[in-house]
Amino acid sequence: MTQISHKTSSNPITSHVHPMAMTQHVFSFEEGNKDLRDLLGGKGANLAEMTNLGLPVPPGFTITTDVCNYFVSKGSYPEGYEEQVEARLDELEKKMGKKLGDASDPLLVSVRSGAAISMPGMMDTILNLGLNDQTVVGLCAKTGNERFAYDAYRRFVNMFGDVVLGVDHEHFEDKMDAMKAAKGVKNDTDLDAADLKELVKQYKEVVKVHAGVPFPEDPKEQLRLATEAVFKSWTNDRAILYRRIHHVPSSIRGTAVNVQSMVFGNMGDTSGTGVAFTRNPSTGERMFYGEFLMNAQGEDVVAGIRTPQNIEELGKIMPEAYAQLLAAKEKLEQHYHDMQDIEFTIETGRLFMLQTRNGKRTAHAAVKIAVDLVAEGLLTKEQALMKVEPNSLNQLLHPRINPKAPKNVVAKGLPASPGAASGKVVFSAEDAVIWVKEKGEKVILVRRETTPEDLAGMHVSEGILTAQGGMTSHAAVVCRGMGKCCVAGCASISVDRKKRKFMVGDLEIWEGDTITLNGSTGEVMLGEVEMLEPEISGDFEEVIGWADKVRKMRVRANADTPHDATVAREYGAEGIGLCRTEHMFFDESRIDSVREMILAKNVEARKKALAKLLPFQREDFTGLFKAMSGFPVTIRLLDPPLHEFLPQKDEKIMELAIELGVTFEELKLVTEQLHEVNPMLGHRGCRLAITFPEIYEMQVQAIVEACIIAKREGTVVLPEIEMPLIACAAELKTLRELALRIIDVCEGGYEMCDVGVRGKASDVIYKIGSMIELPRACLVADQLAPHSDFFSFGTNDLTQTTWGISRDDVGKFMGDYLDKGVLERDPSDSIDLNGVGELMKLAVTKARSVKNEVEFGICGEHGGEPASVEFCHRIGLDYVSCSPFRVPIARLAAAQAVVREGK
Amino acid sequence: MTQISHKTSSNPITSHVHPMAMTQHVFSFEEGNKDLRDLLGGKGANLAEMTNLGLPVPPGFTITTDVCNYFVSKGSYPEGYEEQVEARLDELEKKMGKKLGDASDPLLVSVRSGAAISMPGMMDTILNLGLNDQTVVGLCAKTGNERFAYDAYRRFVNMFGDVVLGVDHEHFEDKMDAMKAAKGVKNDTDLDAADLKELVKQYKEVVKVHAGVPFPEDPKEQLRLATEAVFKSWTNDRAILYRRIHHVPSSIRGTAVNVQSMVFGNMGDTSGTGVAFTRNPSTGERMFYGEFLMNAQGEDVVAGIRTPQNIEELGKIMPEAYAQLLAAKEKLEQHYHDMQDIEFTIETGRLFMLQTRNGKRTAHAAVKIAVDLVAEGLLTKEQALMKVEPNSLNQLLHPRINPKAPKNVVAKGLPASPGAASGKVVFSAEDAVIWVKEKGEKVILVRRETTPEDLAGMHVSEGILTAQGGMTSHAAVVCRGMGKCCVAGCASISVDRKKRKFMVGDLEIWEGDTITLNGSTGEVMLGEVEMLEPEISGDFEEVIGWADKVRKMRVRANADTPHDATVAREYGAEGIGLCRTEHMFFDESRIDSVREMILAKNVEARKKALAKLLPFQREDFTGLFKAMSGFPVTIRLLDPPLHEFLPQKDEKIMELAIELGVTFEELKLVTEQLHEVNPMLGHRGCRLAITFPEIYEMQVQAIVEACIIAKREGTVVLPEIEMPLIACAAELKTLRELALRIIDVCEGGYEMCDVGVRGKASDVIYKIGSMIELPRACLVADQLAPHSDFFSFGTNDLTQTTWGISRDDVGKFMGDYLDKGVLERDPSDSIDLNGVGELMKLAVTKARSVKNEVEFGICGEHGGEPASVEFCHRIGLDYVSCSPFRVPIARLAAAQAVVREGK
Repeated sequence: MTQISHKTSSNPITSHVHPMAMTQHVFSFEEGNKDLRDLLGGKGANLAEMTNLGLPVPPGFTITTDVCNYFVSKGSYPEGYEEQVEARLDELEKKMGKKLGDASDPLLVSVRSGAAISMPGMMDTILNLGLNDQTVVGLCAKTGNERFAYDAYRRFVNMFGDVVLGVDHEHFEDKMDAMKAAKGVKNDTDLDAADLKELVKQYKEVVKVHAGVPFPEDPKEQLRLATEAVFKSWTNDRAILYRRIHHVPSSIRGTAVNVQSMVFGNMGDTSGTGVAFTRNPSTGERMFYGEFLMNAQGEDVVAGIRTPQNIEELGKIMPEAYAQLLAAKEKLEQHYHDMQDIEFTIETGRLFMLQTRNGKRTAHAAVKIAVDLVAEGLLTKEQALMKVEPNSLNQLLHPRINPKAPKNVVAKGLPASPGAASGKVVFSAEDAVIWVKEKGEKVILVRRETTPEDLAGMHVSEGILTAQGGMTSHAAVVCRGMGKCCVAGCASISVDRKKRKFMVGDLEIWEGDTITLNGSTGEVMLGEVEMLEPEISGDFEEVIGWADKVRKMRVRANADTPHDATVAREYGAEGIGLCRTEHMFFDESRIDSVREMILAKNVEARKKALAKLLPFQREDFTGLFKAMSGFPVTIRLLDPPLHEFLPQKDEKIMELAIELGVTFEELKLVTEQLHEVNPMLGHRGCRLAITFPEIYEMQVQAIVEACIIAKREGTVVLPEIEMPLIACAAELKTLRELALRIIDVCEGGYEMCDVGVRGKASDVIYKIGSMIELPRACLVADQLAPHSDFFSFGTNDLTQTTWGISRDDVGKFMGDYLDKGVLERDPSDSIDLNGVGELMKLAVTKARSVKNEVEFGICGEHGGEPASVEFCHRIGLDYVSCSPFRVPIARLAAAQAVVREGK
Repeated sequence: MTQISHKTSSNPITSHVHPMAMTQHVFSFEEGNKDLRDLLGGKGANLAEMTNLGLPVPPGFTITTDVCNYFVSKGSYPEGYEEQVEARLDELEKKMGKKLGDASDPLLVSVRSGAAISMPGMMDTILNLGLNDQTVVGLCAKTGNERFAYDAYRRFVNMFGDVVLGVDHEHFEDKMDAMKAAKGVKNDTDLDAADLKELVKQYKEVVKVHAGVPFPEDPKEQLRLATEAVFKSWTNDRAILYRRIHHVPSSIRGTAVNVQSMVFGNMGDTSGTGVAFTRNPSTGERMFYGEFLMNAQGEDVVAGIRTPQNIEELGKIMPEAYAQLLAAKEKLEQHYHDMQDIEFTIETGRLFMLQTRNGKRTAHAAVKIAVDLVAEGLLTKEQALMKVEPNSLNQLLHPRINPKAPKNVVAKGLPASPGAASGKVVFSAEDAVIWVKEKGEKVILVRRETTPEDLAGMHVSEGILTAQGGMTSHAAVVCRGMGKCCVAGCASISVDRKKRKFMVGDLEIWEGDTITLNGSTGEVMLGEVEMLEPEISGDFEEVIGWADKVRKMRVRANADTPHDATVAREYGAEGIGLCRTEHMFFDESRIDSVREMILAKNVEARKKALAKLLPFQREDFTGLFKAMSGFPVTIRLLDPPLHEFLPQKDEKIMELAIELGVTFEELKLVTEQLHEVNPMLGHRGCRLAITFPEIYEMQVQAIVEACIIAKREGTVVLPEIEMPLIACAAELKTLRELALRIIDVCEGGYEMCDVGVRGKASDVIYKIGSMIELPRACLVADQLAPHSDFFSFGTNDLTQTTWGISRDDVGKFMGDYLDKGVLERDPSDSIDLNGVGELMKLAVTKARSVKNEVEFGICGEHGGEPASVEFCHRIGLDYVSCSPFRVPIARLAAAQAVVREGK
């Protein structure tokens, strides 16, 4: 007979399954550490870390996120789980010298959820678990405080009934209110032990009636049900919504459950509880910052019934515990190398640490803390960089609503361009100009949607509100470029331009009424709301300086005017990645010539009109080159369809007809002929130049002449001529040849009569390249590369064509898509990696396979969005270009991408 | 010393270069054959083939296309070329017993171009090369015909001066006219030898003056110059244009040059020349078909000055030569297995064959010849299939303009839907209906562009003419679906709807004027032009029958009504690949409910309106299922943006407001809110159903109920429910779940009160799938596949989004793109393989990598275009779907794809 010794193992976990197949489902706090965050959740990992640091943490154990995932997807427990819980509970009981359900000295525990990321919305906490009609008696005896014991018991029944068994909280409240009425008292605290004991009875009856099951007296049954309830809360609506809104990656697959022995801050005057930050989360100052309540439980601090005291007061009341707390605080910062957000409880004079985590902070605090931690030697500069969320820098660059100010939000649109603005409502660009220039008012321009015709009005307005259009609509893009606040696609308002009002439901807002916009949240508020001005500190400069040393991609700005270019340079832009020449066409002094060009009936007439535009464009470009001396300037040749330059309304057409000396019918006919069903996919971009080469010829001439002039004045000129909307190699080849021909002529030397300069720039190097903004351009990038010195991804249009979504019309359904969870994120916010990103990767790979040195950049709105910037770094772009106000964000994000890649 | 015997080779070609490195640049006719077409051109390959068949071909040699390519790209000759020409000329001289430039018995040659494909536009022919002041004397002596000799000489100087030296032909004509005037004669033939001799002198003077160089007397110099001129003509404008228009692949890289000893059909009454087809190219009948001229050169037949005689007459005049010709004809057909187009010359009674090639033929002839050649055992069925150009079948399916009829073409648009139509011009859909239904007129509907609102009017019209829109504009797509003639995007007309006229330049065409459209060429003609009716023969059925046995892809039709489905089935459709449900929404009896649905302010009101549409949709689907019993029917759920169902003009809005009992302002506001900047990229397709699930719920219910009803009546139902405009997996998942839910409910059994049927279709299998019509759908096809039973490429939209081109606006620039050679072909005509094709391949590969059995089809317009059909076969699609009238074309093209693949 073979000897089988299957009873030799004393470890219950491994006693009846094959040891090699065993997965550890439950970890005691001693077993975990902060690196097991994915498995133990943030709370569990940090409780374990603190335990192992020797900090006073009430003992307990953590059930892994894998168990949650298993339970949620299969409705049962993985093999060995129940035995492991049993074993860990056993250990805990031994450690505490108490037993769950022991009528004389019961172990009580808390049950808390804790995912790998902080996630409000899930079932959070059950306290005092383990109480029943027997154990409550033991608790009375042990604490000598019957009122405390029954208060804990009734709270537990209420909490358990509510969050585990799904009984509406108000049923318990009703009983409480009735009891208080019967006793003629006002506060819960006025009820005595007998009252509370009676309430427990009533609460249990409530559970039986509304849950249909009796309150479970068995503490182990209580524990099992509470654990399951935590698991199930992972998929409740609020939790799902939270994950969607915050783009929680699907790799986060569940929550862990922490079972911890109870400590009580409400055991009398030597007990208390509090929360604190190791530094000021608002300013970043190195000071202990927090508050506490004596004789209270954690929920009392949150509930706000009593006013907590400043944490420093604790030093006076309980100097010993406070000293322990300060020591713990120091230890934690030293250990975590970051500002911590901690929770603690003092039970009859003894300190217990209940939680620690990296604390949330304002942008201002983030940069200060980063700089201080480096100075204190706790972080390297690279590590410190990662402590600042790039998007939060927006707070430092734009005015913002004072979070404490009262406000009356009447509508919410898309947060299209950050910052905040107040002003009087006007409904046309013309009115905006008149009100501002003639009346000296501050105005908010409200439009159904803006068009290039509105530019002048947008420029003078404090902010823009539109009823239609998405995050990349005209209003949104232009405002971000101007650093101006914009709320776009506010579908709940209806604009009545003729009557000069807009409606939100029945509310009417008339011309001249004051409103406030929050472009960072999309809120529209009545009246003027108090704001905080932007504050840029030396710390900010320092952090950004580190970022510049780390990052590999260059950061340019999208800027159309010398003024924008100067602003961009102040924010650290290293060149212009996109100058939209059409924005220069709308200026009052030029638009007539533009229109003359459009109405020209033959090439000669068109050239004549273009000749009038040449000096203007040359001047524009000269200014840009000077503002960006030493840095490259990418000038995109004319892109929009020509009808954008003509008025659409009959009265405007009439005015223009008179001005131009043509008949109304003639002009109307031209505008109708130019009308397009889908202008985004129409006769625009390089297609204009295939039809009318003379337009690009004039623009290239203006660029070359500007180079010659700027260079004479000492400017270092690095021009890049860019062709928009390229779909096939023949377009690019044709237009490159056109540009080279003009460059050749101009560089060859000739008289520019009107400025008395004779050309010959000789050693300026003209780069010629193209936008990549159509799926086809990505697919044939290897065919384009031979004709291009550089490529720039126009991810606005690329996203629109890849998805078949118009930025101007997306407002009609994007809300539904996000609300219903069909999309986690609007692809115009952040590069859609699966679709658009794949095309970008393909383009880079294909183009570099035939021409390794070709330069790649991005000039779409995504160029200033941190996740997109990181993606651009990963696929090897040379630079990103974004609106001037996002340049610092891109600089930081580009550096973080490098650090993250190194990890 | 090593023995080197480098003079042992007697072959001059290999005597002085290393034999292994030698490329053969020149082939004697004995050395070539028909398989060397790429190298020798069509003419050269066939001359060689005839030579080797033992047919009487004047000896000669061919210079390869590679030499042309080398010369055109480098401006010089490849190594060894000149020596090889010399050697081949040497051989030729020996063969002929004459020498080039021999004053007593000169060799004369013709020099002709000949590329691998027949290519008009290049320099064609130089005859009589080798004549000069010495050799002409020898020619006189040898022929004993001084007039003939000097006539040949002056023709040669003229031809050489014109085509080789670039001297304008009219300068020579002037001299000729002056000579005739001086002599007082009318015809060239009235001039005598002395006159012609004098003319030669004058012609040489003309050359000297206008070309700046003397006429080259050296025959070898003549040959070199003539050869170079042929090479250079490869890149002349006409040749480039021709290659572009006919999509000549860039692998065809040059022309060959044929140098052939001259034979003369103008040597007297026993000489002559002619052209003939071995069968009737118009009917396909097996009869010798051609014409000839006695005592004439080839150019005289073409010039048409004298009327040629029927080929049969030759048998009477020269029975011996005719018998030889008949024998040659038989030999050629037997050898080439195809109808031949031949040229011959008889020199003093002796027959010479100058050319043979496969003859061009009408579609009617093509199918008859194919069937006959199989019956005669000359071709297998697979080979015969390849002899019919699929697109030519259009001629058999649509009426067409009689090519002999006089016509007055006033404008030309895009050939958007084939066939021809005459009718009176009307300018609105309403007028079309009134004129046809009430006045009994035939009408042509002329619109700037059509919209879905025009459908009723389009239906009753003979043909449609639009000023805007491309090959896949609304008008084009709908007309092709209806098999109705359409000329679209006719940019040279301007439509004045109010005045009820359209203009072409100054020409006014008013309502009621008759015009004729040729939808196969895009021509617009004044008045009624004579037409030929379509004629479908048994031969056609036979050829298509063979195709069906060979092809691997199934062919379905795009059809929206039972009538279209029935037509499609008659043309051989094996199911419906695309039923556009929205086309059912425009019917007069339904549009009100559709509008009620759109105007509904909440879900309940919307459901109420949809309930009214349910019976209509159910009836439509029942009819479709019955018409296609046993075949799959793909029903695409609602696709267009809702505003397409509302009127856009104020007066129409007013009418509708009254009808619906709402205010004008209210309705106007709704239409404005629904307005989209880029409707193609807007709130349409599956996006409608994410916002308003109840629309698709109704449609799915209608499909299931139709299945139940049709099945009870014995129909074999194979429904496929299709979601349009899918961009991401979550859309498809959501809508698949929606459809499954509804199917579950309906199949579960319930009362359809209004038709007294209680549901339970039980064993019908519902396939659920999606269109692939966005680049993103291709990129994430592996993510879509788990949620889909089938995919259908919507290449219209896929082309538009991949290129960023709107089909409705493409007319503004596509003409320039094609004219300027930026595009070789409009990507809406034939699948753009580099761009759209790449995406399709990617989608198939990705989807099948996760779900091999997923079915793939195409339902874009490309599904009926032969090159696209071949591509679909190559990437492994299961079926193509096209408009009913293109089904036979697709069937043939699908079979040809298989045969071509096997080669």
